[in-house]
Amino acid sequence: MIDLNSDLGEGFGIWALGDDEALLDVITSANVACGFHAGDPSTMRRVCRQAAERGVAVGAQVSYRDLAGFGRRFIDVDPVELADEVLYQIGALEACARAAGTAVAYVKPHGALYNAVVHHEAQAKAVVDGVGAFGGLPVLGLPGSRLLAAAEAAGLPAVKEAFADRGYTPEGTLVPRNRPDALITDTAKIVERALRLAGSGELVAVDGTVLPTEARSLCLHGDTPGAVAHALAVRDALVSAGTDPVAFTRPIRT
Amino acid sequence: MIDLNSDLGEGFGIWALGDDEALLDVITSANVACGFHAGDPSTMRRVCRQAAERGVAVGAQVSYRDLAGFGRRFIDVDPVELADEVLYQIGALEACARAAGTAVAYVKPHGALYNAVVHHEAQAKAVVDGVGAFGGLPVLGLPGSRLLAAAEAAGLPAVKEAFADRGYTPEGTLVPRNRPDALITDTAKIVERALRLAGSGELVAVDGTVLPTEARSLCLHGDTPGAVAHALAVRDALVSAGTDPVAFTRPIRT
Amino acid sequence: MIDLNSDLGEGFGIWALGDDEALLDVITSANVACGFHAGDPSTMRRVCRQAAERGVAVGAQVSYRDLAGFGRRFIDVDPVELADEVLYQIGALEACARAAGTAVAYVKPHGALYNAVVHHEAQAKAVVDGVGAFGGLPVLGLPGSRLLAAAEAAGLPAVKEAFADRGYTPEGTLVPRNRPDALITDTAKIVERALRLAGSGELVAVDGTVLPTEARSLCLHGDTPGAVAHALAVRDALVSAGTDPVAFTRPIRT
Amino acid sequence: MIDLNSDLGEGFGIWALGDDEALLDVITSANVACGFHAGDPSTMRRVCRQAAERGVAVGAQVSYRDLAGFGRRFIDVDPVELADEVLYQIGALEACARAAGTAVAYVKPHGALYNAVVHHEAQAKAVVDGVGAFGGLPVLGLPGSRLLAAAEAAGLPAVKEAFADRGYTPEGTLVPRNRPDALITDTAKIVERALRLAGSGELVAVDGTVLPTEARSLCLHGDTPGAVAHALAVRDALVSAGTDPVAFTRPIRT
Repeated sequence: MIDLNSDLGEGFGIWALGDDEALLDVITSANVACGFHAGDPSTMRRVCRQAAERGVAVGAQVSYRDLAGFGRRFIDVDPVELADEVLYQIGALEACARAAGTAVAYVKPHGALYNAVVHHEAQAKAVVDGVGAFGGLPVLGLPGSRLLAAAEAAGLPAVKEAFADRGYTPEGTLVPRNRPDALITDTAKIVERALRLAGSGELVAVDGTVLPTEARSLCLHGDTPGAVAHALAVRDALVSAGTDPVAFTRPIRT
Repeated sequence: MIDLNSDLGEGFGIWALGDDEALLDVITSANVACGFHAGDPSTMRRVCRQAAERGVAVGAQVSYRDLAGFGRRFIDVDPVELADEVLYQIGALEACARAAGTAVAYVKPHGALYNAVVHHEAQAKAVVDGVGAFGGLPVLGLPGSRLLAAAEAAGLPAVKEAFADRGYTPEGTLVPRNRPDALITDTAKIVERALRLAGSGELVAVDGTVLPTEARSLCLHGDTPGAVAHALAVRDALVSAGTDPVAFTRPIRT
Repeated sequence: MIDLNSDLGEGFGIWALGDDEALLDVITSANVACGFHAGDPSTMRRVCRQAAERGVAVGAQVSYRDLAGFGRRFIDVDPVELADEVLYQIGALEACARAAGTAVAYVKPHGALYNAVVHHEAQAKAVVDGVGAFGGLPVLGLPGSRLLAAAEAAGLPAVKEAFADRGYTPEGTLVPRNRPDALITDTAKIVERALRLAGSGELVAVDGTVLPTEARSLCLHGDTPGAVAHALAVRDALVSAGTDPVAFTRPIRT
Repeated sequence: MIDLNSDLGEGFGIWALGDDEALLDVITSANVACGFHAGDPSTMRRVCRQAAERGVAVGAQVSYRDLAGFGRRFIDVDPVELADEVLYQIGALEACARAAGTAVAYVKPHGALYNAVVHHEAQAKAVVDGVGAFGGLPVLGLPGSRLLAAAEAAGLPAVKEAFADRGYTPEGTLVPRNRPDALITDTAKIVERALRLAGSGELVAVDGTVLPTEARSLCLHGDTPGAVAHALAVRDALVSAGTDPVAFTRPIRT
């Protein structure tokens, strides 16, 4: 069983980003921006409503407080404050989700925070502390990350994800974005990788190494060129192969 | 029965404002800033914890998005967006409150929004819509305001408050702040007015007119000179008169 | 002689808005956002450089502090603070302009501030005070506005502008945006109006009334559908008519 | 000759911090916050006016964009954007300074940026690039820092500062704030260190090592307990010793 997740609601005020509605027809889990790197209350509420209408699960895409940098710059936040900021963001989204007849079903860090908690012990624990303070939710992240280790240690479901359109090193980490093999743009290749991931859980690294993953979710980018087309192709191929995407959390109707 | 409410948690980051802990020992309802005019997640969580420890009710002090102006400038926000912003703020505070073993028990608009919704029909309705989208909570405001009318129309408890340290016009509205009789600073006078309010519900206007109010709550300012001393004097006088202050909502233990 | 002005640099961080480069090839004066409603330092510097390369004049598009609302909501700012905010914005843009080999040549308020200073005496004077504190610059605005009156009273050049794609009332004010005749979208009609404005200074109101204007500048919208096409058509028609657009200020090379 | 510098204008909106006017009577150079970690346009303009009245030099206290963290958290900003942000901040302050009859005379990074540019080559160069884009100004910083090296390489005056109330390691770096010997709070000791610094340029490290410094400026903290008293005592002692503090830049009257 494989879930398809994507980042949504990443506009702010007048500024739009990505095609939320098109992606909502493809994915099973929506990582909704909570206002710290993107996302305003009206956008959050709208995306929650659209997700609820389609039975798509809503996740809190928590982030550093950084609208100017879209949450893409590491910030050396005090872990106690970071935990509180995570709690604040989940709560704000939860209210929007409840009003839309759904609820926050999981948490996934965004951007530089996502990258930081792969290795940054204190921030990883802080994110998990914030989730725990909310009452506990599944945490979605990179296999092998401190984040998922901290989630497990706290007794929270730690859900692994993989990227069909990103190059992997033989060690199983993502190829840095400044390298030419960081991003895979060929649709056929992306689809092939997605099918293999959904089937056997395997990924092939840039040097040909076969990496076993236990990814339960596949992340589809929404803001790269051809993003929606890639996402659609992946979904269609999965459905054709008899592997209909299913959320790793149950979509919630309140 | 009379409730004592005050604005708390109105610092931001390094900047502090008022003496939250001293006031928490006096009041029965804490209007906690939710991050839009003041209040950061760590402050919100701390105030919720301190309120919960003392059995003080937590209210969402919702505001325009205006840190630079402390929410004291009217903003002509679109009502739909305002409702969503109110929902967002309540949700963020609710998460902090739940983590502290309590819950948001009511909503009170702050500053310019408080003043606007006395007359501004659309914004008053928007605030109530936001509260309703959260599931409904008591709304605290000025007697005769559009806000309380909208709350009643929506089936929400509309709770009236009065100010012992503010001058009133014969019509029952507050004397504008730029007039010399806007603020009462004499402790004995403030206490006398508080006792009369708690006893008979009456207020005396600046011209001597006796105003019947149905105020269930008394607002104590936290940021005026001598604020804490005034608050303490009011509480002591009420207790001596056998009128122990009681929250208009039940303090919640989750 | 007619100038063509347009709003530029209105993205923020990751979010883009409009096609700055395409418009810079058409206009003679660029109203550059200064960071309060849109515009970050890197965008400001880039637009200044692109304007300088093309000999396009740089103007400070000053605004309320309101990223979330894109400066489109009236804010009841204290006039003293507003003057200081205007000064701050001009100064920030001036540094970017100087680094690009040009300088801020004029000031034009944005959005809700633009609309407010048509009637709002105190805010109009505040904007002019801010410009005066900077040392004085031409002020671009609506004919008949308090803003231009205040500029004149302060001895600053008051430059009138008109809109070829907006409907006018017989009184010479803009038709409110919520009315169907507020926006003119037919290219031929826009061009015809632009030519008449450039030629005789006349505009035709929605009821047929001929309005004499003394507009020295024509505002071209950059964010409406077909904006760039309209702008190009207007410029081409003006050039064909022998009325090459010319900035009302001299483009500055430092 | 020794200069006394201090951080000023670090309130925001309603929130105050430190006693600007008391410090302005003591120091010779004012590091004025520019709105990114603290400081709003009205505060900036007021501090510039008060500094100009006293002949105190105005410096731009540039910072990461981080009001919530008071600029005290490292942010991994792209160097190109950082340079533009520095330029923006200097320009904004310059406008305020000019309106007050003075001008920005130097630049000093604040908080986490100050600490980062001790070692962070790219951010140090970015700060200097921003200063250079403004036309060049003296840069105030820690002896041995990348910042001062980059300033020198760019042909800008690199001015060294020392702290009389901070513990130093034998290597000449500041003792981290979480260590008990990080801060010196005894007035007599602070005064003694200031006199020795002003006289021979020497500092004594926590282990007794005598450190030669070439500090031209002494930084006086404004936000520590007893800050103003310490600052006054230092100034009085310097004057008594015949070493009247003098700005390292000429105070500017425009």
